[in-house]
Amino acid sequence: MGTDAVTVMSALGRRAKDAAKAMRMAETCAKNKALQLAAAVIRREMKEILAANAMDMQAAEKNGLDAALKDRLMLNGDRVDAMAEGLEQIAALPDPVGAIDNLRYRPSGIQVGHMRVPLGVIGIIYESRPNVTADAAGLCLKSGNAAILRGGSEAIHSNRAIAACLRRALVDSGLSQDAVQLVDSTDRALVGALLQSEQYVDVIIPRGGKSLIERVAAESRVPVIKHLDGICHVYIDAAADADMALNIAMNAKTHRYGVCNAMETLLIHQDAVSACTAVIVQAMLDKGVEVRGCERTRTAAAGLDVKAATDEDWATEYLSPVLSIRVVDNFEQAVNHIAEFGSGHTESIVTGSYEAGQRFLREVDSASVMWNASTRFADGFEYGLGAEIGISTDRLHVRGPVGLEGLTTQKWIVLGNGQVR
Amino acid sequence: MGTDAVTVMSALGRRAKDAAKAMRMAETCAKNKALQLAAAVIRREMKEILAANAMDMQAAEKNGLDAALKDRLMLNGDRVDAMAEGLEQIAALPDPVGAIDNLRYRPSGIQVGHMRVPLGVIGIIYESRPNVTADAAGLCLKSGNAAILRGGSEAIHSNRAIAACLRRALVDSGLSQDAVQLVDSTDRALVGALLQSEQYVDVIIPRGGKSLIERVAAESRVPVIKHLDGICHVYIDAAADADMALNIAMNAKTHRYGVCNAMETLLIHQDAVSACTAVIVQAMLDKGVEVRGCERTRTAAAGLDVKAATDEDWATEYLSPVLSIRVVDNFEQAVNHIAEFGSGHTESIVTGSYEAGQRFLREVDSASVMWNASTRFADGFEYGLGAEIGISTDRLHVRGPVGLEGLTTQKWIVLGNGQVR
Repeated sequence: MGTDAVTVMSALGRRAKDAAKAMRMAETCAKNKALQLAAAVIRREMKEILAANAMDMQAAEKNGLDAALKDRLMLNGDRVDAMAEGLEQIAALPDPVGAIDNLRYRPSGIQVGHMRVPLGVIGIIYESRPNVTADAAGLCLKSGNAAILRGGSEAIHSNRAIAACLRRALVDSGLSQDAVQLVDSTDRALVGALLQSEQYVDVIIPRGGKSLIERVAAESRVPVIKHLDGICHVYIDAAADADMALNIAMNAKTHRYGVCNAMETLLIHQDAVSACTAVIVQAMLDKGVEVRGCERTRTAAAGLDVKAATDEDWATEYLSPVLSIRVVDNFEQAVNHIAEFGSGHTESIVTGSYEAGQRFLREVDSASVMWNASTRFADGFEYGLGAEIGISTDRLHVRGPVGLEGLTTQKWIVLGNGQVR
Repeated sequence: MGTDAVTVMSALGRRAKDAAKAMRMAETCAKNKALQLAAAVIRREMKEILAANAMDMQAAEKNGLDAALKDRLMLNGDRVDAMAEGLEQIAALPDPVGAIDNLRYRPSGIQVGHMRVPLGVIGIIYESRPNVTADAAGLCLKSGNAAILRGGSEAIHSNRAIAACLRRALVDSGLSQDAVQLVDSTDRALVGALLQSEQYVDVIIPRGGKSLIERVAAESRVPVIKHLDGICHVYIDAAADADMALNIAMNAKTHRYGVCNAMETLLIHQDAVSACTAVIVQAMLDKGVEVRGCERTRTAAAGLDVKAATDEDWATEYLSPVLSIRVVDNFEQAVNHIAEFGSGHTESIVTGSYEAGQRFLREVDSASVMWNASTRFADGFEYGLGAEIGISTDRLHVRGPVGLEGLTTQKWIVLGNGQVR
């Protein structure tokens, strides 16, 4: 890492820290005004944003980026409008900052409680989607934090244009523009410097593919909120309703393929095999899903195109129209399979049995554990967070969908009238 | 770090991880029984524990350890009894594991809520106090975690004897003895290996002096819950009651000197100087406290022995009968002084002003912020946690006194009746 990168990042970090100090005390109405203004500025500057994006798209073409990446990079009127709408939705959410919980009298006479406060400076490292610039900045702003944004170098022009809208809105709302700073350079050394900026940055949130997240987690001296894999399971218990099982399995797998809360492996209790297996396999094949199964699955779905699953399948996040199916002897085997191969993201049991459902909720150690619902519900909007900055499969601080609350922490407050020990 | 250390730690880590899996599901009554039994075994084995401690004390004598260290190392009947009592108190606390909060219906028809669950494997690295072995193990056990304990090498015989009592109690309660494991070696390389054991250990809690904590924070790949300094402030506002101010200042400084929640710097609003300064300085001197003040403090306490404070004083955690005093022009200067020199541990304002008190609660960014109460209340027992494993000045996961809840995390649970997206 060059001295230059460290110097640049220190200047940025110092400004962010100062801005965070002011944002911590910003009034709810000022923050909401900034978000609404940012939405208005983004709509007003749509032409400039699209022109900047066109430059990124040209470079992407020239550099031969693949179609999926170009689709993520591409902006159009609808996508820019969706960004503005996202900011307005964040403005409409309740402000988590300053909320006091559990203020209680103690025997000493003091009142003790918790007050919710911002984390401080949040570094967001992301890839090609330019809309993350607006989403992440909006969530950090509302939660009273300062954001340092480091988007993909292929999106630099788009990100610059979007960040400028947010910064203008901050100034026009009487807040510090440095509450949103873009790392305005494609120098990769700056990412390294950001990850070492413990004295300025309170938490790093990487958003993107597995290799980005692994690199950030390995290199960072700053605490990281991250999710690596989404190897999600649906377990059809012996006492499952066959229609419900079919419905949930189909939704969990086929509603969207490339998302982290899609099912990758279906576990079926041996007593549910005859009622469920062939029906579900047929429905998956009809949808164009490739099915890979254990021996018992293939026997149960004899005559249907089920490939042999290997141990590698159980450990794979397909993110595509591929499903692995395994028949288990009993509840314990299902839970053990999840413990061995799951990624701690989201698992669901389908069962009418009170005992099996209760045990599943307790024994499965994932960020989201469900009973008779599709894994696709593991999402900040569906959970009522209003918005999400990502999903955490870590154990400390926050698990599962991360919304405004996940970007805050709690301090203790004590109210007395002169108490001493 | 030698291969041997890594091998030893991996074996230990694997056993801890297996034990954590079982502890996660352990019933409250089994955990409480283990804690009560452990207390009984410790009382029954008091002779053996004291004999082991005598070996440590002999070695300490031979190695010329200083008096303070020997006092921390030393056990006697009362101290062993206090350990047993501590375990009984932990048994009496409510079990945080499995508690469900905020279970609410969403528009989709699913119910979404939070379930509290253990963190998993907790590594505790501590110094000479052997009672930490029982305290830390007890808190980890009650919160459903597995503990890996690494005490100071000077306390190895004592720790071995105490850990054996806990392990016996675990077995006799039908739980895994590996839920409490002592790193039974004085090899320092094992600490390094423990800090690199990301795949087995979920969090490290260092307890001890600043150099230990700094080393752990710098080297650890595992998330760390820590507190570095306790440079706590009391700020006497313009609208303070002079008697209350004297009372709180005296308690915060002189109740105990060597604790992290003792006041190190007293800030006095210039309008409170005449009513408070000389009185407090006199009272401090009467108690044998050395006073170091800014120029205005020395003028206000003319004729009393106030040494000149330097900038270094504001940044020093004395942990001894020394106090620095600074007169400030206004509220902002007090808050800025705290932001510049404070350690984010605990600060208290003394004021009858609603505005000043409210602003102080909001603007001071410390783990504990108090209004008209002594900083000495920043303590797990005083806050109602029942027990504490330490104090966190970090921002993520947990701030301030860390009790059973701080050793747990929350997962999302979703209850449906067949909902899909």
